[in-house]
Amino acid sequence: MKGTVLYGPGDIRFEEVPEPKIEKPTDAIIRIAATCVCGSDLWPYRGISPGNGPSRMGHEYCGFVEDVGSAVNTLRKGQFVVGSFATSDNTCPTCGIGYQSSCVQREFVSEAQSPYLRVPHADGTLVATRETPDAAMVPGLLASSDVLGTGWYAADAAKVKPGATAVIVGDGAVGLLTTLSAKQMGAERIIVMSRHPARQKLARDFGATDIIAERGEEGVAKILEMTRGIGADSVLECVGTGESMAQAMRVTRRGGHMSFVGVPHGVEIEGQSLFFSHIHLEGGPAPVRRYLPDLINLVLEKKIDPSPVFDLVLPLEKVAEGYKAMDERQAIKALLQP
Amino acid sequence: MKGTVLYGPGDIRFEEVPEPKIEKPTDAIIRIAATCVCGSDLWPYRGISPGNGPSRMGHEYCGFVEDVGSAVNTLRKGQFVVGSFATSDNTCPTCGIGYQSSCVQREFVSEAQSPYLRVPHADGTLVATRETPDAAMVPGLLASSDVLGTGWYAADAAKVKPGATAVIVGDGAVGLLTTLSAKQMGAERIIVMSRHPARQKLARDFGATDIIAERGEEGVAKILEMTRGIGADSVLECVGTGESMAQAMRVTRRGGHMSFVGVPHGVEIEGQSLFFSHIHLEGGPAPVRRYLPDLINLVLEKKIDPSPVFDLVLPLEKVAEGYKAMDERQAIKALLQP
Repeated sequence: MKGTVLYGPGDIRFEEVPEPKIEKPTDAIIRIAATCVCGSDLWPYRGISPGNGPSRMGHEYCGFVEDVGSAVNTLRKGQFVVGSFATSDNTCPTCGIGYQSSCVQREFVSEAQSPYLRVPHADGTLVATRETPDAAMVPGLLASSDVLGTGWYAADAAKVKPGATAVIVGDGAVGLLTTLSAKQMGAERIIVMSRHPARQKLARDFGATDIIAERGEEGVAKILEMTRGIGADSVLECVGTGESMAQAMRVTRRGGHMSFVGVPHGVEIEGQSLFFSHIHLEGGPAPVRRYLPDLINLVLEKKIDPSPVFDLVLPLEKVAEGYKAMDERQAIKALLQP
Repeated sequence: MKGTVLYGPGDIRFEEVPEPKIEKPTDAIIRIAATCVCGSDLWPYRGISPGNGPSRMGHEYCGFVEDVGSAVNTLRKGQFVVGSFATSDNTCPTCGIGYQSSCVQREFVSEAQSPYLRVPHADGTLVATRETPDAAMVPGLLASSDVLGTGWYAADAAKVKPGATAVIVGDGAVGLLTTLSAKQMGAERIIVMSRHPARQKLARDFGATDIIAERGEEGVAKILEMTRGIGADSVLECVGTGESMAQAMRVTRRGGHMSFVGVPHGVEIEGQSLFFSHIHLEGGPAPVRRYLPDLINLVLEKKIDPSPVFDLVLPLEKVAEGYKAMDERQAIKALLQP
C-alpha cells in the first residue's frame, strides 16, 4: 500500500510502505475511513521538531475493523471504530483515573495517514459505534479522535462551568473546537484570540461571544479590561509557545484555571510568576479515550458538529497539499480520504 | 518601641522603630501576643533574596486588638485575633472565590516581629476568637496565621483525600505541618522526605507513615518503588527550589495533584516535562484567611496541635538568636514573645 512519509522540512511523500499486520494478540487492523493532518504534524513539517530521517505520519483516524488479534475481546471485523492518538490498555491505574493518554502501556499512533493502520491495545483504545454511521457523520467522528477530544480536554481541564468566562488562546482547529467545547459546557462568555477572518467566523459559529485580534501586551490588556481587571475563570491555551503560555497565564484570574493542550515548544515557566499568578494549571496529551463514548454520542445525536473545522477535503494521495495548505494557513484542517 | 530590622545578610537587629498608628480607617493596631520567624525570612537573611537596605521583619502574628480605625466594624479593643500574612478586604471577586492572599487590595504584613503591629483591612484580614484563649493555646493559634495555614493549603491544593497517598517534599516547619494537614484530611500513606532525625520524629508524630532520607534520583526511585511505579496521588512541595520542584513533579502520578507553597527561588519549569507529567499543579501564597475560622476551631478544640513545630521559644529581644538557630537548622521554628 501507499502511505504518508515525512522526509524532512516541507518534504511529504505518499509512497510505498509495508501493509500493517497483527503483531501482538492485542492489536487490531483498521481500514481507514478518514484521517487528517494535525497542527502538531506541522512542527516536524516546519523543521521545528527535529526529525530522525523518514517518518510515517498521522495519528487521527476512524474506520472499519479489518482484523483483530487473538486477545481482542470487544471488537469484531466490520465494526466502525474511532480511536485515540494515544493507545491505552484502559485497565492500568492511570487509565483507572481517566488519564488514558498517559497509560503505562501507551504508544503514540504515527502511521494513520494511510489506507490501513495497526492499533495496539485495541480493546482499550478503540470505541465502536452501535451501527455503521452515515458517510456524512464520518468527519465529526474523525474529529473526536484527537482535535475535538483535545478541545474537550482543554475545556474540562480548565474547569469550564455554566456561566463562566472562558478565554481561548489560539484559533487553530484545536482552539476552534475548544470554543465549541466551552460552549457545550455552558460558558457564558467565550473570548477567542484570533486575527484571521475565516477563523473568527468559525469561532463565532462555534460559540465565541467576543473576538480579540490583539496579541501580547495589548491582548492581555484588552482581556483584563473585559473581565473587571481580574481575568477569566478559565483560560484554554491551544498553541504551545512560550508567548501564548505567558499570555494565557496573565489573563487567568487568581484562583482560576488554565489548561494547555498543545505540546509546548520552547516553553519555560518561571516559578515566581506561576506562584503569584495563583492559578490551577493542568495540561498534557488529551485523554481522548475518556471522552470518546460521550463525544461519539454527541456527534451522532447531532448535538455538536465539529466537522466545519475540515475546510479542505483531499484524496489521501494528495496529502502533501494538505500539509502545504495548513502550513500556509490557507486551510484550517485537511481531511484525507483513502 | 523596639522592633526587628534586617540590615543585610545575617544582620538582624532589635532596635528602636516607630510605634504603629492607625493610618487608614480600615486599619487595626494589634498588641502582639506571639510572633515567630518564618522559613521565608531566611531567604533575605541568607542574602538569597536581594534586600533594599534595612527592612522591618515578621508576618506571623496573633494578639489583642489595641485600636481600630473608624471603618472597622467587626472588631473591638481587647479581642484576641489571628491574622494572615497577607491582608485582604474579603469582599473583592478574588476573595469571593477563596483566594484572599491574592486580594485585589492585598498588602504583605512585614512588621510583625514587634510588640505592636498595624494590620490594614482589619475586618477582612483578622479573625477574633470567641473568648480570650489560654496562654497554652497561643502557639497553636500563632501557627494558624501562616505556617499551619500554608501546610493546610498545600494539602488542600494537592487534593489530599481520604485513603490517598501523599508525598511531602521538605521537612521545614511548613513541611511538618503539611504532614499534619494531610493526616487530618485523611491521607492513608504519608511519605515525608527528610534526613534530619529530630524532624523525622516530629513528622512521624504528625502522621508520616514513611520517611525517605534519599534525595534526587535516589529519592525519586524510592518513592516510585513504594507507589507501584506510578507515583503518589498528591505531592506537596514545601521547599521552593528547582531541585525540590523537579523531584515533586517526578513523583506525582499522571493525573495526580501537586501543590507548591514556598516562594520559588530559581525555579524554571520546562514546558514539555510538565506537559508529559500530566499533573494538576497549584501553588501560590496560601489563602490563610479562607482557612482561619476552621483552623482556629480545630486548634481550640484540640483536634490538632501544630505547636510542636516551635522548638525554640525566645523573648522578642533575642530575635537574632532565633534567626541564627533556624539558619543553622538547630531549631525548626522560633517563637518570639514580646
